[in-house]
Amino acid sequence: MNIITLLTDFGLNDAYVGIMKGVILSINPYVQIIDISHSVTPQDITQSAYLISSAYKYFPQNTIHIVVVDPGVGSQRQIIAAKINGHIFICSNNGILSLIMDKNDVEIEEIICIDNDEYFLKPVSKTFHGRDIFAPIAAHLSKGIPLKKIGTAFNQDKVVKLNIAKPFISTKNELIGQVVHIDHFGNLITNIDSETLRKFNKIPSMFKILINSNEINGIFDTYTDVEIGQPIALIGSSGFLEISVNSGKGSDYFNVKNGVNIKIQTKTKKEDECLL
Amino acid sequence: MNIITLLTDFGLNDAYVGIMKGVILSINPYVQIIDISHSVTPQDITQSAYLISSAYKYFPQNTIHIVVVDPGVGSQRQIIAAKINGHIFICSNNGILSLIMDKNDVEIEEIICIDNDEYFLKPVSKTFHGRDIFAPIAAHLSKGIPLKKIGTAFNQDKVVKLNIAKPFISTKNELIGQVVHIDHFGNLITNIDSETLRKFNKIPSMFKILINSNEINGIFDTYTDVEIGQPIALIGSSGFLEISVNSGKGSDYFNVKNGVNIKIQTKTKKEDECLL
Amino acid sequence: MNIITLLTDFGLNDAYVGIMKGVILSINPYVQIIDISHSVTPQDITQSAYLISSAYKYFPQNTIHIVVVDPGVGSQRQIIAAKINGHIFICSNNGILSLIMDKNDVEIEEIICIDNDEYFLKPVSKTFHGRDIFAPIAAHLSKGIPLKKIGTAFNQDKVVKLNIAKPFISTKNELIGQVVHIDHFGNLITNIDSETLRKFNKIPSMFKILINSNEINGIFDTYTDVEIGQPIALIGSSGFLEISVNSGKGSDYFNVKNGVNIKIQTKTKKEDECLL
Repeated sequence: MNIITLLTDFGLNDAYVGIMKGVILSINPYVQIIDISHSVTPQDITQSAYLISSAYKYFPQNTIHIVVVDPGVGSQRQIIAAKINGHIFICSNNGILSLIMDKNDVEIEEIICIDNDEYFLKPVSKTFHGRDIFAPIAAHLSKGIPLKKIGTAFNQDKVVKLNIAKPFISTKNELIGQVVHIDHFGNLITNIDSETLRKFNKIPSMFKILINSNEINGIFDTYTDVEIGQPIALIGSSGFLEISVNSGKGSDYFNVKNGVNIKIQTKTKKEDECLL
Repeated sequence: MNIITLLTDFGLNDAYVGIMKGVILSINPYVQIIDISHSVTPQDITQSAYLISSAYKYFPQNTIHIVVVDPGVGSQRQIIAAKINGHIFICSNNGILSLIMDKNDVEIEEIICIDNDEYFLKPVSKTFHGRDIFAPIAAHLSKGIPLKKIGTAFNQDKVVKLNIAKPFISTKNELIGQVVHIDHFGNLITNIDSETLRKFNKIPSMFKILINSNEINGIFDTYTDVEIGQPIALIGSSGFLEISVNSGKGSDYFNVKNGVNIKIQTKTKKEDECLL
Repeated sequence: MNIITLLTDFGLNDAYVGIMKGVILSINPYVQIIDISHSVTPQDITQSAYLISSAYKYFPQNTIHIVVVDPGVGSQRQIIAAKINGHIFICSNNGILSLIMDKNDVEIEEIICIDNDEYFLKPVSKTFHGRDIFAPIAAHLSKGIPLKKIGTAFNQDKVVKLNIAKPFISTKNELIGQVVHIDHFGNLITNIDSETLRKFNKIPSMFKILINSNEINGIFDTYTDVEIGQPIALIGSSGFLEISVNSGKGSDYFNVKNGVNIKIQTKTKKEDECLL
């Protein structure tokens, strides 16, 4: 059975998501449709790039992932279908694939600019390409139509990349990163991956983490390694440094928003101190 | 594979929607269940009439659409099953089908008052007919039981119609309409369809649209036809006039709520003006 | 076709729920996944115990129910799989099954402590066992692997029970209960079931219900038995006493929160009064 996933900024109050599913099932009633989320902040491409890159790899090979976060709908922006790492992505060419294509070991198999209107739902509206283009193209692909039939080969250098902040080491030898996502639990997920941390310093207990004039000492394994209500730094489930509060909300505790900087320093061992 | 859609005002915090799906799958485990929305404002029949009429036609023929927005649950109100335009609708007889039945080309094939309790879940509660009547009836229909088995033939004149505002032309020759839905993006969707507009005036650039003491000139194709943050009028994806703001919220910009009036005037061409 | 249900406190803004579905479908693409809710208040075990106990029995026998409300994730808490009343539950051993196991007629068939990591997703994170343990275990069970293969037999006396309030009769011969859930409509669902009420007094019209210094007389059948905007007491769809307002919100009307006490008195028949 084929799988199509949906990631949009449509919310759940309107019928838009249901309509896209209706279009898909009208073409292929045997496909399984799975929601990643429909609560992307309207028009937030960076957030959707983060969400799809963290989710897609847990689905079976050949899953088709539709992402509709598309402030340019109806304008001259391109819609692309990309086969990457064995998965197919359908999205506007606006940077959504940045974090997926950014990896060293990425395998970009094929990119198509979708311009064959034979598979579109007619008449094509100017404001709801999710319904008229993304959904029917995904449904036809799920039935086995090859990618090259839906449009024109597209050079991967033309795929738009977001200018997403990367962690760096400052002149004071501090590792500077950024909060890139705040989840439902208020966990602050940063752009610092475990590999970058390891290169910066090999001993987790030696880290001092500074965020909005607060200080956290050491990196631990799991929320319950500190008391309830206490802050903690750990490597989260997606492999990035995360600032949390045991049974609380890091976002409230530190009073921070997406995009805030975090600094990591290495503690100097004092004479009378015995660090692990 | 058969499809059942769900549109309710149950929200997503309780188990009510999951329970209905459990009842359906206990009777027909092979059916595919699709959510239209569960965030209808509690007891808002007009909103659910709008949502189901905009969504149903994108599903395959013979899809069964359950709508549970039912302030009269447990009272003497009727529950009906209606085959219209090749789709089956199950809802209370409270006006939910108004916008679907209101079309000139509607094909009403069969209407049944559901009163055969053989297919109900027993004991039937007085407060959750979604679980005890709507869900099991839909599941049995999806297995191929004919409509006439679930109840008594019902005259279509007895189907309740909502008194929904329609656009009209005022004595000052203005086209007067109403905002009937504000979507997740803050787009103001009106009751003025493109056909009505065309009859009123053939030249889109000649329109002046008045809303809450603001003025918009002309009707355009797509959000990006104006600068970011600027208001725009366009024909939306469901074929109705829509007032939006490019990458913003029309509802905030104009500070309006559902039901507000909008006026459309025809601009008088001045001597020194060259309109498209 | 096998069914897996999901009940979590993950919310719908992140990709966590989608990721769990991806893991399940990677192992068993033929399973049907149904959401109970993902809006449990973060870490609220009592609420999730209430929701799963009210929902599970409407699903077919052998449905697998995953509940991830897990403040202790990554610590030494156990994860269990329990076959009860023909259904399989996968959850942390933190009290989630309390209301299901609490019934007089419960049939506990088998309980396993999940400790065979052969079926886990590797590497197992310390913070997302929903993805790495719950989801793959459920998927493997849905393919027919017997429970005993996933871990060690577990004594049912070791299953954690919540200390959940039960109704009692006070020295003044009042029945004292508690609001245990406030649903999307603002209905106040109590812990007083119809059986307990019947034992307290056989005549529904003889009840006087006291809540936050308000008084409701009698127990009725359905919301519309009182005028719009008026409060009413009735036996709700899950068999418990419920305080509601016809077409309104009981939670606003009475200005109460979860956990508030309610008192039920028996009215004394006065000489000049004729009660039903």
